[in-house]
Amino acid sequence: MSNRNIAIVGSGLVGSLLALYLLKKGYKVTIFDRRPDIRKAEFSGRSINLAMSNRGWNALKQIGIADDIVPLGIPMDGRCLHVVGKESYNQPYGKEGEAIYSISRGVLNRKMIDLVAARGGVLKFNEKIWNIDLSEAKLYSGESAKSPWKEYQFDQIFGCDGAFSMVRHNMQRRSRFDYSQSFLEAGYKELTIPAGEGGTYLLEKNKLHIWPRGKFMLIALPNLDGSFTCTLFLPYEGKHSFENLTTKEALLDFWKMFFPDTLALMPTLVSDFFENPTSALVTIKCFPWAYKDKVVLVGDAAHAIVPFYGHGMNAGFEDVYELDKIIDAFEGDDWGQIFKTFQKQRKPNADAIATLSYNNFLEMSQKTADPTFLLRKKIERKFAEIYPELWKPLYSRVTFSRNSYHEALEIGKRQAQIMDEIMALPDIELRSEDSEIMTHIKTRVEAQRISLGV
Amino acid sequence: MSNRNIAIVGSGLVGSLLALYLLKKGYKVTIFDRRPDIRKAEFSGRSINLAMSNRGWNALKQIGIADDIVPLGIPMDGRCLHVVGKESYNQPYGKEGEAIYSISRGVLNRKMIDLVAARGGVLKFNEKIWNIDLSEAKLYSGESAKSPWKEYQFDQIFGCDGAFSMVRHNMQRRSRFDYSQSFLEAGYKELTIPAGEGGTYLLEKNKLHIWPRGKFMLIALPNLDGSFTCTLFLPYEGKHSFENLTTKEALLDFWKMFFPDTLALMPTLVSDFFENPTSALVTIKCFPWAYKDKVVLVGDAAHAIVPFYGHGMNAGFEDVYELDKIIDAFEGDDWGQIFKTFQKQRKPNADAIATLSYNNFLEMSQKTADPTFLLRKKIERKFAEIYPELWKPLYSRVTFSRNSYHEALEIGKRQAQIMDEIMALPDIELRSEDSEIMTHIKTRVEAQRISLGV
Repeated sequence: MSNRNIAIVGSGLVGSLLALYLLKKGYKVTIFDRRPDIRKAEFSGRSINLAMSNRGWNALKQIGIADDIVPLGIPMDGRCLHVVGKESYNQPYGKEGEAIYSISRGVLNRKMIDLVAARGGVLKFNEKIWNIDLSEAKLYSGESAKSPWKEYQFDQIFGCDGAFSMVRHNMQRRSRFDYSQSFLEAGYKELTIPAGEGGTYLLEKNKLHIWPRGKFMLIALPNLDGSFTCTLFLPYEGKHSFENLTTKEALLDFWKMFFPDTLALMPTLVSDFFENPTSALVTIKCFPWAYKDKVVLVGDAAHAIVPFYGHGMNAGFEDVYELDKIIDAFEGDDWGQIFKTFQKQRKPNADAIATLSYNNFLEMSQKTADPTFLLRKKIERKFAEIYPELWKPLYSRVTFSRNSYHEALEIGKRQAQIMDEIMALPDIELRSEDSEIMTHIKTRVEAQRISLGV
Repeated sequence: MSNRNIAIVGSGLVGSLLALYLLKKGYKVTIFDRRPDIRKAEFSGRSINLAMSNRGWNALKQIGIADDIVPLGIPMDGRCLHVVGKESYNQPYGKEGEAIYSISRGVLNRKMIDLVAARGGVLKFNEKIWNIDLSEAKLYSGESAKSPWKEYQFDQIFGCDGAFSMVRHNMQRRSRFDYSQSFLEAGYKELTIPAGEGGTYLLEKNKLHIWPRGKFMLIALPNLDGSFTCTLFLPYEGKHSFENLTTKEALLDFWKMFFPDTLALMPTLVSDFFENPTSALVTIKCFPWAYKDKVVLVGDAAHAIVPFYGHGMNAGFEDVYELDKIIDAFEGDDWGQIFKTFQKQRKPNADAIATLSYNNFLEMSQKTADPTFLLRKKIERKFAEIYPELWKPLYSRVTFSRNSYHEALEIGKRQAQIMDEIMALPDIELRSEDSEIMTHIKTRVEAQRISLGV
């Protein structure tokens, strides 16, 4: 049935990618968004940055738009660590030639909405959905909760309306809907390092910059115009916290102590800090994702995660890629089975990337500054170079492969056990490159080769 | 300030008990409930039964109403197990003289609302709250979401409106509110065993009857009129499930196979089964419980649990008892600190009884029919008899003491480790009463005496 009539709630990255996939099948697609058209909104060219990796690119390639997006991204082939009192140093993310791509959310979203419009999608901006009749796949929009509402009827409704999804909220009213929202004790704030003269980059361009400080950290990702978008992750309460940075003096004292090398690069630090909002970091899980053959959640609406693995968008794009394959497997017909298969397949992966993302805050903010951790990474990388068929590091499996997140998490745990053993060997720092160390790892890996999935 | 003006949302057990405590302090108390007055509603005298234990009685004694409630309860000093093909047998709950009390929710709630009215509480039934202004402690009630609303202003608002609390729902809209709702795969249905001739009991009166069947079970609690309220806990889906019991024939076949001894006692089984609703079992957790010095959640609204330890009401009553002590400690003055102290103190206990309750489904439905489990209980009971100062069984600590739930859970885990060791000893079934076994336990307990909290 190619004249299928589809509604997508939310015109963000996942909603617009899904629209492109469904338009290609010949379906009629209408996107609703309560916000104005991002293409017409005030927009600085800078905004929250994303790190596109293999899963994201794969989903774009499949629908033939990767070439439109590549020019919007800046490859980052590793972390650049800034530790107080030390020269900055680099940690490669993967092998030679492997990189993640810094892309502005706004730039990417505008481009994708352009593509949806060009391919015949109907876009309804500034139209807020107030209620959904799940069993009839009807949407009700209007000015306010108490104003008269307009009714729409569809064959299927896709909720791509993000972490605070109205579609999910509607499903949550039903019984037997498992749901959790869990906030971190840290929030975040966007800051900026502007471009140097003539659009030059004031930090090394092709790196994700990190200032790891234990319970808090600053990061910076490059933009096309030479600027960097910075994000400060900081606890809401406690000694070093947002609640204690309420004056210009307190902020500058804090900054001089912890991020002295950035002060000269951030001329608008004070105004950015006090004018930009402090945003919360939340992990959201729910189940089921689908209501019969009528309504399904995709992306953040089904599984919002914290940003420390850079995989929110990548996981959402992979949802769309996998959903598309499932629709094809059922010949676009049995939507009850399509949605059931989708949620059964994707839920364990969504849970796994939620755990990986949560755990990675510790790695980024604390461990990247720890010499033992750096040695561990070095040993692991060396072993993976010698025996690529025996070892793929966790970060690479998550970011540069399309092995399932669930498998990555499980294998990562077993690899961590082996590396714990290695790091506990006497004098490991003196003989980290010795062949006996490599042989030791090899023996342990081969003993559980199948369970490492290599 | 004794002319403090308090609103309580919800006239259930926790709301009415809290009203009695606050009235005693001289506060003005108004209770809102969206339902009609339970004292005037149609009421059979039978309904979901509760098991009142020490924590519940303690809270009633403190406010001087235990004597009003005692005549409503029937002591149950142990479980009576019904296993197919075996004589029924008893398991005592605690020591001689220790019992939990079967009480009808409706009978108890009516009595408590009578007491609230007699002590000057203002009762507003059939008045639904649609919105709350948290920072101003204002309530808005009305006919419907879209009708005109009436505004009330209070000094403090207490949300005692149960698992699906509207007050909590209002707090949930704010950022940084942790929340989870998690449903069991089993639901439950109320059934009944009527009284025999002349109000006689057709099963042993002073027992909680259990028909443990692994993934499902039937229980029965006595009522004052000679009847028993029965509850069937059964998965929604699967081989033996609600979805497969859709005809009279299927139901009777199932019943004959698994609960043959009850068939003759349940003349209205078929009509009860198909007319009574199937209800869901949910665990709800959230944090924070309080909004500044204005609004706080108490009881199920803050921490709904599954019923397998019989502690939903007991935990809610203990909330009220502890909150009362905290209000006194702050001389009824600094309500920000009162609410902060309350949630900090009670949250770990609410989480612990949630875990204990969830785990107890397995114990009731599966282990109570397992000879190894019965032997384990017997050894434990014997050791506790000989060395009462060294060992209080977990069930007794939860039900017959007022040690914190959190402590009970932690100590219970350590006791379980010791008993795992004991049960792994060779030929344990032959020498379970030997003094060497008792000595073995004693040695292990003494090695960690402090951590067992005895």
